[in-house]
Amino acid sequence: MKSKLSILKIGGNVIEDEQKLDIFLNAFAQLEGVKILVHGGGKKATDLSSQLGVETIMHKGRRITSNENLEIITMVYAGLLNKSIVVKLQANKCNAIGLSGTDGNSISAVKRPVEPIDFGFVGDVRKVNDNLINLFLSNAITPVFCALTHNNKGQLLNTNADTIAAEIAIAMSDKYDTELIYCFEKKGVLNDVNKADSVISKMNSADFETVKENGKVHEGMLPKLTNAFYALENGVKAVCIQNYGSIGFPGPNGTTITL
Amino acid sequence: MKSKLSILKIGGNVIEDEQKLDIFLNAFAQLEGVKILVHGGGKKATDLSSQLGVETIMHKGRRITSNENLEIITMVYAGLLNKSIVVKLQANKCNAIGLSGTDGNSISAVKRPVEPIDFGFVGDVRKVNDNLINLFLSNAITPVFCALTHNNKGQLLNTNADTIAAEIAIAMSDKYDTELIYCFEKKGVLNDVNKADSVISKMNSADFETVKENGKVHEGMLPKLTNAFYALENGVKAVCIQNYGSIGFPGPNGTTITL
Repeated sequence: MKSKLSILKIGGNVIEDEQKLDIFLNAFAQLEGVKILVHGGGKKATDLSSQLGVETIMHKGRRITSNENLEIITMVYAGLLNKSIVVKLQANKCNAIGLSGTDGNSISAVKRPVEPIDFGFVGDVRKVNDNLINLFLSNAITPVFCALTHNNKGQLLNTNADTIAAEIAIAMSDKYDTELIYCFEKKGVLNDVNKADSVISKMNSADFETVKENGKVHEGMLPKLTNAFYALENGVKAVCIQNYGSIGFPGPNGTTITL
Repeated sequence: MKSKLSILKIGGNVIEDEQKLDIFLNAFAQLEGVKILVHGGGKKATDLSSQLGVETIMHKGRRITSNENLEIITMVYAGLLNKSIVVKLQANKCNAIGLSGTDGNSISAVKRPVEPIDFGFVGDVRKVNDNLINLFLSNAITPVFCALTHNNKGQLLNTNADTIAAEIAIAMSDKYDTELIYCFEKKGVLNDVNKADSVISKMNSADFETVKENGKVHEGMLPKLTNAFYALENGVKAVCIQNYGSIGFPGPNGTTITL
């Protein structure tokens, strides 16, 4: 029987709020069993860009990454945010190690084709180094990934953190029963984005088709849900979308995703 | 018999010059045997500070580190510089992993006492995690350290890179025959700082006392030499000060330090 591995992802809204981040990291440190954290970026990179007079261009919520943007992202994601998270987990007795995809060749990617949209230095994951991750986990070390990968040819690439979390969960599924938990500031996927308690407790792929058609789910949730189903279709045992303050599977709240 | 481990340190003058850095990283990637790289910071953090309107205060060549300075250093050292080095080593087929002292609890430190000078968030090394480093080395992974440590209580600390290199070399001396190589833009310790070829090929502790008294050696070399003798006195097998483009021990050039 395989042992359980939890892969958690937190996004910008939790990272930007020091109190929320502390609550989450405390809960994460106490989570039993082997685990991995993936974190997004948030407003800090955009703030630093504007302080430095570097333009931030978004296309459908995704950052178009120039060389200057990539430098800033590398400073903020792999430097400030990643190390701030790791140092707090260490203080919480969780033996965390911060990683970008180039560290130990942990996540290889290919630069996204420039057609139909040139996203610049954005990468799509090609290979997760499951042996390296397993080396950490089997030595009681908890990997903390930021949203950067590399192409094995000397180029760092900006990569969506939701996707990195899904790809890591899939890659580790041969060795572990993997559980993927997307954590954010809401209580789960909401039926009505204006009603904090309108949590949809379970969603399957048929439900997902329905909400995509009727437009009932907030647009920002769609890529997360797409990643959730992609993970389940590729060997991940369980996926849940939960509040940052109440994590764990099966959780007391949140939305459980099933095929 | 113990096997050989090389610990190399490069400073700001090499890192700031892309061509020099590429030459060094190429040579480092090809260096045989197990190895560790420690890198300093350089001008980039100071440049970013002035762009952001954050004051940089130095005391005898050492940075006084406010909370704002520490954020910038974390972005530049652990983010931009560390990942730029790792991604290039990966492209050179060297399986590098970037680390600050909080990652995997690799280097613990204590904040320096505020008397006689309050250096702010500056740390003095207390413990190098030799087991973690050995885990990497025995799995053909090459650690690349930036000049940040932590205090195990949630605080990152700015720590001199020359000292980190010496402390790592000392800590690994139980398991390996360690060789510490300080690499910089000159050919070695110079008899006359204005004559690039006036390399002192060997220096022992008596010579060091002499040059300290007669002031013949450039002031900036003194902390590096102090670290070199400290390392030799604490179990490190060999120390050399070499040019970035011609590394390896015993090297074709450079200054060999002996007790």
